[in-house]
Amino acid sequence: MTGAEVILQTAKDAGVKICFANAGTTELPLVAAFDKVSGIRPVLGLFEGVCTGAADGYGRVTQKPAMTLLHLGPGFANGIANLHNARRAKTPVFNVIGEHASWHLAADPPLNMNIKSLAKPVSGWLKTSRSVNTLAQETAQALNASLYGQISTLIVPADYQWSEYSGKKISLPEFKFAAPNRKKIQRAANLIKKSSRPALILGGRVLRKEGLMAAAKIKAATACDLLMITFPAYLDRGAGIPLLKRIPYFPEQAAQLLAEYDAFVMAGASEPVAFFGYKGGQSFYLSPKQKKVRIDDDREDINSVLEELADALGARGNFSTSSVLAKYSLPEMPSGKLNSQKLGAVIANLQPEDCIIVEEGVTAGAPYYTLAQTLKPHSHMSLTGGAIGMGMPCALGASLACPEKRIINIEADGSAMYTVQALWSQAHEKANVTTIICSNRKYFTIEFECRRAGINSPGEATAALIKMDNPPVDWIALGKSMGLPAVCVDTAEELSKELKAALKEPEPHLIEAVLGR
Amino acid sequence: MTGAEVILQTAKDAGVKICFANAGTTELPLVAAFDKVSGIRPVLGLFEGVCTGAADGYGRVTQKPAMTLLHLGPGFANGIANLHNARRAKTPVFNVIGEHASWHLAADPPLNMNIKSLAKPVSGWLKTSRSVNTLAQETAQALNASLYGQISTLIVPADYQWSEYSGKKISLPEFKFAAPNRKKIQRAANLIKKSSRPALILGGRVLRKEGLMAAAKIKAATACDLLMITFPAYLDRGAGIPLLKRIPYFPEQAAQLLAEYDAFVMAGASEPVAFFGYKGGQSFYLSPKQKKVRIDDDREDINSVLEELADALGARGNFSTSSVLAKYSLPEMPSGKLNSQKLGAVIANLQPEDCIIVEEGVTAGAPYYTLAQTLKPHSHMSLTGGAIGMGMPCALGASLACPEKRIINIEADGSAMYTVQALWSQAHEKANVTTIICSNRKYFTIEFECRRAGINSPGEATAALIKMDNPPVDWIALGKSMGLPAVCVDTAEELSKELKAALKEPEPHLIEAVLGR
Repeated sequence: MTGAEVILQTAKDAGVKICFANAGTTELPLVAAFDKVSGIRPVLGLFEGVCTGAADGYGRVTQKPAMTLLHLGPGFANGIANLHNARRAKTPVFNVIGEHASWHLAADPPLNMNIKSLAKPVSGWLKTSRSVNTLAQETAQALNASLYGQISTLIVPADYQWSEYSGKKISLPEFKFAAPNRKKIQRAANLIKKSSRPALILGGRVLRKEGLMAAAKIKAATACDLLMITFPAYLDRGAGIPLLKRIPYFPEQAAQLLAEYDAFVMAGASEPVAFFGYKGGQSFYLSPKQKKVRIDDDREDINSVLEELADALGARGNFSTSSVLAKYSLPEMPSGKLNSQKLGAVIANLQPEDCIIVEEGVTAGAPYYTLAQTLKPHSHMSLTGGAIGMGMPCALGASLACPEKRIINIEADGSAMYTVQALWSQAHEKANVTTIICSNRKYFTIEFECRRAGINSPGEATAALIKMDNPPVDWIALGKSMGLPAVCVDTAEELSKELKAALKEPEPHLIEAVLGR
Repeated sequence: MTGAEVILQTAKDAGVKICFANAGTTELPLVAAFDKVSGIRPVLGLFEGVCTGAADGYGRVTQKPAMTLLHLGPGFANGIANLHNARRAKTPVFNVIGEHASWHLAADPPLNMNIKSLAKPVSGWLKTSRSVNTLAQETAQALNASLYGQISTLIVPADYQWSEYSGKKISLPEFKFAAPNRKKIQRAANLIKKSSRPALILGGRVLRKEGLMAAAKIKAATACDLLMITFPAYLDRGAGIPLLKRIPYFPEQAAQLLAEYDAFVMAGASEPVAFFGYKGGQSFYLSPKQKKVRIDDDREDINSVLEELADALGARGNFSTSSVLAKYSLPEMPSGKLNSQKLGAVIANLQPEDCIIVEEGVTAGAPYYTLAQTLKPHSHMSLTGGAIGMGMPCALGASLACPEKRIINIEADGSAMYTVQALWSQAHEKANVTTIICSNRKYFTIEFECRRAGINSPGEATAALIKMDNPPVDWIALGKSMGLPAVCVDTAEELSKELKAALKEPEPHLIEAVLGR
């Protein structure tokens, strides 16, 4: 077996089934190895940001290592933005990067770059192979490390890929979370007991149904309120699932909400901080008077930790659901010219049970979020790291992880353009994704931030960095160019009609929803 | 004046006229400053790789600092691949990256990344500002440093952008190349004199007419042959300009050419090395018996250095042009179904004098290159760093640098998809660019490398990483989606008709040329 085959065989043995790839000459042995080692299917992205964003989506859904294959420094660089999102989402990702043959690096050939320097900011586990014979071990280590919710990056020189492996047969290490820290759990329990208005701040894996039910027991048994981070990687929500208060995006609103509590227990989350630092603004919201404890770290299984906290609080689960769980209700179906509020209401009305919403609507996605917590149970993925261009690739990855589920991608037009090549892979893979482009033809975030900064009528140069309307992107043509049926709507009625039609068919669709005020 | 205004004012004073930008909240003061400091026009890219690629094109043409404005780590990361090409092209680029407010970094907000670690591999000059009051000095230093043919990157926290500047008024440092190294020049002269078959290897700035004429004098006066690097950043060529032998891309051919010589003088170029290291292959071509000297380093003005070498060799320039300069001739106009050879011949027949060719045709661009050296004088830009996705942004930048010139972009379909958003900016700017997509609907490089590696019939998985034909990208629709008129042709006659029509109009056009064998 070649080194390349050993990497794939080890990954296959560890359960990897898909590799999101855009390869070049330095990955040729790995490309060829996909035909020797059956069981891992390569999925082509026409740009690396599609591969890494799809890996993020796939890994968020499956909680198993999502594999990518990328080409040297520039190829990896193209994938960094979505790896940044994956890092913030704590998604298990396993990157394999082909490097020049080890003996060729001294020549500093044109494509040579310091890959490690590029990979370090996003990788929790990072290694450059120094021999073909360590590749099995390194692959296994990388995959294992990723399961703590981090990105593993293995840089493999081409000569180790094509050489014959004569290392030992390895057995895959068993993955184990670290043991819960009982002291911290007890401290948290005491804090909740003796505080008059405590809150749990939930994030990470605890935002799935299992963890949320543990949190609900605590809420029912104590005075503890349930808050959540602003941008969840994967959130189960809807009727029968605990209601959470989301910490608002804007600092003034976040500070106002958090001021209501006298103590915080963080589970799967760090202390909340402002997304941006504004002039005269603040980074942190909690005052020294407000007590806080985080009960886990990223190497522990937060769901077990939360169950132990519930036990320590004597929260047994026999609670009246009415006080903590969401009850089913639908917003009214709107009519007339679309705005972001109506867009959200139409989607909320039509989305099927058990679907996955991939939300990168940015300013246009906010109303939907608020409307959706009382719908039938579904899952919600958001932009965890703020690096726009996550939505369409993430939806692709989610659809390959769950072909049986319906994926609805609520996508800002500005963000969509960053990784627009994802549409080709959606068509190629016949992915079960309906993309709704929230089309306001501008970077509304920047316009909005201008207003917050007191710039109410931006000058010509400022406007030139905000507006995308000259020419407006023709999303019908853009969909068609990559093999997707696409339509454009500007009323609630049309959106409703087209969304219903799209949801009836298993293949990808694109709907441009032109938004007015 | 705010820090942001000071940065722009300093850049304006240094001659910067355009800033290729994609900004976010952490660059808001800079965005607003474009309306306060007139004279620098922001040009919007809908993806950062467009901004950095356009800066590369603009800087290659003007040889003046090409400015970009990018958003935090992820925004910068999206621009790295084309900055890598710019670094290899020795293009003067000045990046300004907005960073979180300095006091906000401790909170590790979601968009926080180690920007320096990302920027280091591409930046020759790199600094994070530590005060508003050093911004004038830092901007001036960064601009000055870029003129040696490198990338300068200044990371500016948002609070320094919005704060009032109370630093001193600075005077712009005068840019000066380092003095030529006379010892090296004398050594090179001696080497040429005493060798029986010496060659000059030319690269960098020496590939413009001025430098090439100095090289021609040397060729005429000595036995010295003229070679050039494989991928020139900016090459003047055509009738009346010295003929050069390009060092071939594939190692076997490069080794064969270079074996003909017994000594090499490198001017604006390093020792030639293989692009990739292949199994059983080599990195370097020159044997210890072949003497070599590089007469400059990147801080010297290679054109002056070469003139001094000509003087040292007694090469006075009164030579018979017939032996060294290209004579005008056109290839025959082809007919019938297109292939890459015919594509090259049609373009060669129709390209106007003084145009700029931006060539990222990869496998499909090679025949054109060979055909074009005897055409009317024109300039040629190629993919210097191997990071695909350079062509369309680079053509945009070149067109803004030279609105009076015609830009023809010969572009591989696989590469085009990487930075396809450049078409929007071309339409927005009404850029004088005609793009010819070489459409073979696959990554032919990888297929070709498979064959070289002995894989003549790739299996299903390998093919899945090569083929882009399911669905084929519809370039007519893709052009239309971003506001460009587009056509699709598959014969030489049609290409000829459509290219003529496109070249008559000043606005951007896209022609998909479907290539058979």
